[in-house]
Amino acid sequence: MKDNRFAVIMAGGRGERFWPLSTAARPKQVLSLVGGRPMLAQAVDRLKGFIPPERILIITSASLVDVSREAVPELPPANVIGEPCGRDTAAACALGAAVVKARCAEGTFCILTADHVIRKIDRFLQILEHGFTVAERGESLVTIGIKPTFPSTGFGYIDCGEVLSDGDVRVFKARRFVEKPDAKTAETYLQSGHYLWNSGMFIWKADTLLAALRQFEKPVYDMAAAMLPVVDTPAFEAGLTTEYNRLGRISIDYAVMEKAPNIVTAAGDFEWYDVGSWPALEDHFEKDADGNVIVGDGVMLDSAGNVVVSGNRLTALIGVKDLVVVHAEKATLICPKSRAQDVKQMVQLLARKEQYADVL
Amino acid sequence: MKDNRFAVIMAGGRGERFWPLSTAARPKQVLSLVGGRPMLAQAVDRLKGFIPPERILIITSASLVDVSREAVPELPPANVIGEPCGRDTAAACALGAAVVKARCAEGTFCILTADHVIRKIDRFLQILEHGFTVAERGESLVTIGIKPTFPSTGFGYIDCGEVLSDGDVRVFKARRFVEKPDAKTAETYLQSGHYLWNSGMFIWKADTLLAALRQFEKPVYDMAAAMLPVVDTPAFEAGLTTEYNRLGRISIDYAVMEKAPNIVTAAGDFEWYDVGSWPALEDHFEKDADGNVIVGDGVMLDSAGNVVVSGNRLTALIGVKDLVVVHAEKATLICPKSRAQDVKQMVQLLARKEQYADVL
Repeated sequence: MKDNRFAVIMAGGRGERFWPLSTAARPKQVLSLVGGRPMLAQAVDRLKGFIPPERILIITSASLVDVSREAVPELPPANVIGEPCGRDTAAACALGAAVVKARCAEGTFCILTADHVIRKIDRFLQILEHGFTVAERGESLVTIGIKPTFPSTGFGYIDCGEVLSDGDVRVFKARRFVEKPDAKTAETYLQSGHYLWNSGMFIWKADTLLAALRQFEKPVYDMAAAMLPVVDTPAFEAGLTTEYNRLGRISIDYAVMEKAPNIVTAAGDFEWYDVGSWPALEDHFEKDADGNVIVGDGVMLDSAGNVVVSGNRLTALIGVKDLVVVHAEKATLICPKSRAQDVKQMVQLLARKEQYADVL
Repeated sequence: MKDNRFAVIMAGGRGERFWPLSTAARPKQVLSLVGGRPMLAQAVDRLKGFIPPERILIITSASLVDVSREAVPELPPANVIGEPCGRDTAAACALGAAVVKARCAEGTFCILTADHVIRKIDRFLQILEHGFTVAERGESLVTIGIKPTFPSTGFGYIDCGEVLSDGDVRVFKARRFVEKPDAKTAETYLQSGHYLWNSGMFIWKADTLLAALRQFEKPVYDMAAAMLPVVDTPAFEAGLTTEYNRLGRISIDYAVMEKAPNIVTAAGDFEWYDVGSWPALEDHFEKDADGNVIVGDGVMLDSAGNVVVSGNRLTALIGVKDLVVVHAEKATLICPKSRAQDVKQMVQLLARKEQYADVL
């Protein structure tokens, strides 16, 4: 394990689409929706033997620092960093760069997220290894692209150009980053064969990222430059609040990836699942004979294609199809699978009513 | 209040169609589904000023004697009688006759049930009063028929003949009792104008009923005759077990009402609701602008025509129509309103699995 290698796991956000289980106080990354341990802990577990806990950082919102530390007790507490307010991914990446560089001048790090389920971990680590090797040269920003399996309109895409390495891990020059497409465009991307999903996983030297930010998104660079000297000092927290308050929200894709010329993409051919909303559980649990996914205790009569998370109760369904049913301690959600994206809207609706504060 | 007048409220059964709220240990008659107090207590309340608690009897199953006494604490405990096993309504009516006659040789009683919601209580009591007056003559078995409001296939009907009394309360000679009809037949009954629903409410002198049973259903009569001398003695319970074990199941309609020539019907023009399954709650609660009935705490997004009983949780619906959603302490039921009759089938399915004993 090279001691210049770090990982930064982004675990902000509150997983609104996983309400009612995911709440402001216990969002999805600290829940065990899929695969036993909390998703955040699984993101750390994956790196076992590749990057040790001392060099894994978690960037989350300040209010989630404590539950995140509980979810991953093996990390040094100082490695769980709370953002005083959400400023999107450019700021989080820049903050990661500042902390990594302060701890190791030649530090190189990968950006990972706690939102995804990855299978075939060995292959995942092979690709990370290769990506680090490329990134350590300090010339390029490395992204991990995922081979699309369907014409998703939920991801950005990377248009891959020249093949830079055609060995065990394929690496391409990235021609451009494109935002989430409409259905028709997504279909042409899928057909073309040279588009990969933008996974939100990146590998770069801290210096390389900071240089790109300096060129393309100066306010975010300035924040990182201001934080660098106070990393691991008592002045860190107050400094972060001051700096973050000055920033606007901007994503790393928009700030850097859609502009920088030195982006390369390693093709990720491991299994990668965006656990973005309730129907995604269908990828991770065995279905019964009628295509129902039942997490917990459910009994079905003439019911098919449902996703049921039953909590500590029995859910009995008669004659219903393709519903999502999720019980939390104090609230139950019921919607067709096709409306699962609108759970966010429900959360916003509830947020306007004071009496629902304790279920959000 | 004439002291020869008694009421016998039938409150057996376990309300399977109201699962998961109605369970074997706490069936619907002791729940407050509609109208505040338990349905059994409401059945007693209705008689206020007409028949005092000392002359109101409840016949239920032995296992429900305790919860029934709790639900109606104003009744003397000895007035809540537990049947050792279910033998249908003929036996319950006959047992009522035995107890009433033992306490008052000239006793006359009405049979009421705990399953119904009645509004316009004053009118209900006027009709009872008239019915008692007729029944006290000892010549006829009096039934209360309800003017049909739709072609129900869920009730038996009474074919009304000659008008016996055309005053404030209309009384007819009953031509015949007919079982639950098919939809087409129900429609012709409704059109004809001379069919009333068989409400299951009767008024008769104990002697008149016993005479009819002696003629048409001797085994049930024999049970009542055997019980008469042991009413209010320590031998009652053991006697009842012995006698009931000898009987088969037979309804009062089949045993007597479809055969006896001396039946008259008082037309009940009060509001009478059979609270037979979850969608019936629509008759008793105000709907929101989208036709949802929400008992408890529910928030709807693009959802219409649902019946939600939320218990002590929040139920959030997105994009669903015409569903029944009922939360009990340990179980939740979800089904389309059109399948509400099949809740019974779900209960039977669960009953075959030992692990669900505590939700049934």
